[in-house]
This record gives sequence, structure tokens and C-alpha cells, in this order.
Amino acid sequence: MRITRYELDGAIHYGVLHDETIERLAASPFQSLAPSGVVDQTSRVRLLAPLERPRVFGVGFNYTTHIKEIGHELPTIPCLFMKPSTAVIGPEEPIVYPRQGKEVHYEGELAVVIGKQVRGIPEDEALDAVLGYSCANDVSERSIQFAEMDMGCLLIGKGFDSFCPIGPVIATGIDPGHLDLTTRLNGTVRQRSNTSDLLFTVPYLVAYISDAITLLPGDVIITGTPAGVGPMQPNDLVEVEIENIGVLRNRVVAANYAA
Amino acid sequence: MRITRYELDGAIHYGVLHDETIERLAASPFQSLAPSGVVDQTSRVRLLAPLERPRVFGVGFNYTTHIKEIGHELPTIPCLFMKPSTAVIGPEEPIVYPRQGKEVHYEGELAVVIGKQVRGIPEDEALDAVLGYSCANDVSERSIQFAEMDMGCLLIGKGFDSFCPIGPVIATGIDPGHLDLTTRLNGTVRQRSNTSDLLFTVPYLVAYISDAITLLPGDVIITGTPAGVGPMQPNDLVEVEIENIGVLRNRVVAANYAA
Repeated sequence: MRITRYELDGAIHYGVLHDETIERLAASPFQSLAPSGVVDQTSRVRLLAPLERPRVFGVGFNYTTHIKEIGHELPTIPCLFMKPSTAVIGPEEPIVYPRQGKEVHYEGELAVVIGKQVRGIPEDEALDAVLGYSCANDVSERSIQFAEMDMGCLLIGKGFDSFCPIGPVIATGIDPGHLDLTTRLNGTVRQRSNTSDLLFTVPYLVAYISDAITLLPGDVIITGTPAGVGPMQPNDLVEVEIENIGVLRNRVVAANYAA
Repeated sequence: MRITRYELDGAIHYGVLHDETIERLAASPFQSLAPSGVVDQTSRVRLLAPLERPRVFGVGFNYTTHIKEIGHELPTIPCLFMKPSTAVIGPEEPIVYPRQGKEVHYEGELAVVIGKQVRGIPEDEALDAVLGYSCANDVSERSIQFAEMDMGCLLIGKGFDSFCPIGPVIATGIDPGHLDLTTRLNGTVRQRSNTSDLLFTVPYLVAYISDAITLLPGDVIITGTPAGVGPMQPNDLVEVEIENIGVLRNRVVAANYAA
């Protein structure tokens, strides 16, 4: 099942996406997957980020290929941080290249969407807490990110508004352990990997975080990026495609806010 | 004005706290400070964290006394991180010493409560975005915190459930630049400083964060801790007192959740 959040005639709904139609849900998928009985035409709607202002937990250094690429040691515990909810945008929404940005990179990632409130869930039950999976782009401004990480913290470099595209859907009923992941920049493949290369697996991450932090319905864990990260410029088109989920497509635009 | 969030007969309200009475507000203080006309007896209510599941932005290394205490260099940009909303507890609620905790420290801090949605606000206007101020305890499990910071990230060490007491009120109309701050452990003073010692001031922090991240009503910035941090044990009583705000009092308890 591919769950979408969408706007139609000024109202926002959740639904189950098919090629030409969307079966509108009666409520949020975190409450129930019961249909409302209404069917919308896919061509008439605008797909949104499948979550509204979620908490986003990020993972660094989680594909061995990317860890080797940047010459880092293998971590013994997950390297975790948060991206602010205001960074989240949906498919086709613009990634805003910040005025103060020097080196803005894409990072294609598998996003895990939590479906239930859990604390201390064991690894072998952790997937029961997951509603489904999406694509994410953990956009990062490297000059600020590295200056922050040198001090042992991380917020602005990964936290700018629009630095967390998520979408196009939440795919349910798929195995997160064996999914091809591809990132394309202007149509050229830049990252190609499989989630079987994850150092800390999805069940491990859910269990590890929930051992300390109560996870809530709608929380997102973005699971880290494989080798092939690189810079983007205004007007670039970036696509994150994950098997059995879909393609998350965003264009980079220059900053235009007054500051 | 001292704004409180409180529970009375199973319902939750905001109000203006006086010694013996609370003037109940008609709505959230982020919408309006208009009174409802109802007056409650302070003795009958339970004060809650003055915010419900806020986004919490933390600042490390922000008092020169604390930076010297830990032998760190002075930062050139703020060292920022987020604490998850689920860490927030209110006055008199227990700080849960985690099962996996080895060295859990108190950190008394001034909390800044954002009142308006702002992006790119200049430093000389930044206090216009602030509703008021509270006391916070940036509870930290050092062994995990330092292992995370060595990798350049930070979540679990400062993110456990209950690791962010905030309260007892949001004080409005006070100058955040000259407030005495005292932390007591079992009645003994452990931290004593003044917010005039902040390396990055409140207006600077609000402007700096909002230059990248849209700040939302109800967001909290906890501004860093002065010298004198130290360990707590189950049954310890920790108090953070800030001039013109009040005393935030929490007891440490041993973990009791099943994991």
C-alpha cells in the first residue's frame, strides 16, 4: 500500500495512491487505514510530504561505502542527530540554497515512518512499530556541518528550511533490508546502493532510539546515505529513488527570503 | 507576568500565576493573553511544563566559566543541537535515571520561549520574537554524550525521556541579559552565575538560528550552562532558580520502565 498526503481544492487529505486514483482515508493513517469512500483523481491533486512537521531523527556514517568515501572510522554506536520539522518539504517542492551556503550536498536515504508510540521495543519486534517507508534527501551544507561536528554538535548544517525532502509516499508491507537506492543529479546516477549495506539496520535503529526516547506516531528516522554524495547548485534537479517506494524529485532554487 | 500551564480536575489550561490564584487564559498564550474570566485556586492545581512537546534547541559551550571548567576552546559559532520533545517534563516531575546511565549530570539553564513565527529576524529585533523565559535543566548522560560528540553528533546523551525539565512558568517582560542563575543539588549550591556571562546572547541566538530555521511559537532555546555541572543520583533533588522567573524543582528516580 502506498499512502499519500495530498492537497485538493485547498483541503489536505491522506489516501492510498493508485496510478489514476487515490482512495481517500477517513482519518490520518496513524489513527486508522479505513477508507472514507471518496475516490479522488490523481491528476487533480498535489502530493505533499507524507507527514506534517514530523520529528526527524538522522543517522550519520551508516553505509560502509560512504564511511570509506569520507575516510571515517566505523562507528560502534549510531551517530544520531535531529533535523528540525521546518526542514521537511514534499515531492516537487524546492530545496532552497541558502544565502550563506557554500557547499550544499544531496544525501539520498531510506526514511522509516513510525506508526505507534513505543519505548524500549526489542530489535526483534521493532518493525511492528513501523508504519512504512519513504525516500528522503538529507540535504547538508558541508561548511557549517563540519564546523559544528568539530565541536561535537550538529543543527544548522543539516537544519535549514527545506533541507529534508520526504516522499512521495509511505510504502507499507515492504522489507526495509533489501531495497535498491539510487540518487540522480540532473538525470545522472550519483548514488547507487542497497539498504542491505546499512551498518545499523532499521530494526536495530528503532530499538536503539526507543531504548532512550519514546518514539511517536509520525516520527521519521532517516537512515544514512551511501557513497556518492556531492554538491548541488541552484536549478539542479535531484531525485532519490527507492525500490518499491518511488521517486522523490526536488529542484534546487536560490534563496529569496529577505534577511 | 508569569504564565503557567496547569491541570485542574483532569483538564489542562494556561493561566497567569499569582500567589494564591491563577487567572485562567481564554486560549494558548501563543494565540492571545486575553483572560477567560475564570480564576482558579493555585492550591488546587498541578503545574505542568509550560509548553506541550515543544521543539527544544540546545546550546553547548556558552558560558566562559563552563568552557574553562571542561578545558574546551571558545567556539566561534554557537554549538547547537536538539533535544526531542519527549524529553520535556514539568516542575516536580521525576527525572528518570536511565537503566543504561553511568554519569547523569544536571545543567541549569535559561530557557527562551519563542512567541511568533520568524525567519531571518535581525539581532536588534530578535527579542520581539520572544514570549518569555523559563528555567531548564539540560540533563545529560555524559558517557553517551561524549561518545556521540566524538563522532560529531548528539542525541541520546541529552535526549532520554525526562531529560529536559522546564518551568515553573514563562516569565514575560524581563531582561534576559542580567539574570542570576543558581542550581542546587539537595539544597547545596552547585552552579551560580548570571546570564550576563553568556558568550552568545539571547538576541544573538534567536537571530542566528532563525537565519537558517523558521522558529515557531512554542519553540524553546535552552541557552547553555555555567560552571559547576556534576552528577546526580536517584533520590537527589535538583533545583534551578533564575531571578524573576522562579525555581524549577525535580527529583531523580531510578528507571522503572520495562525494556
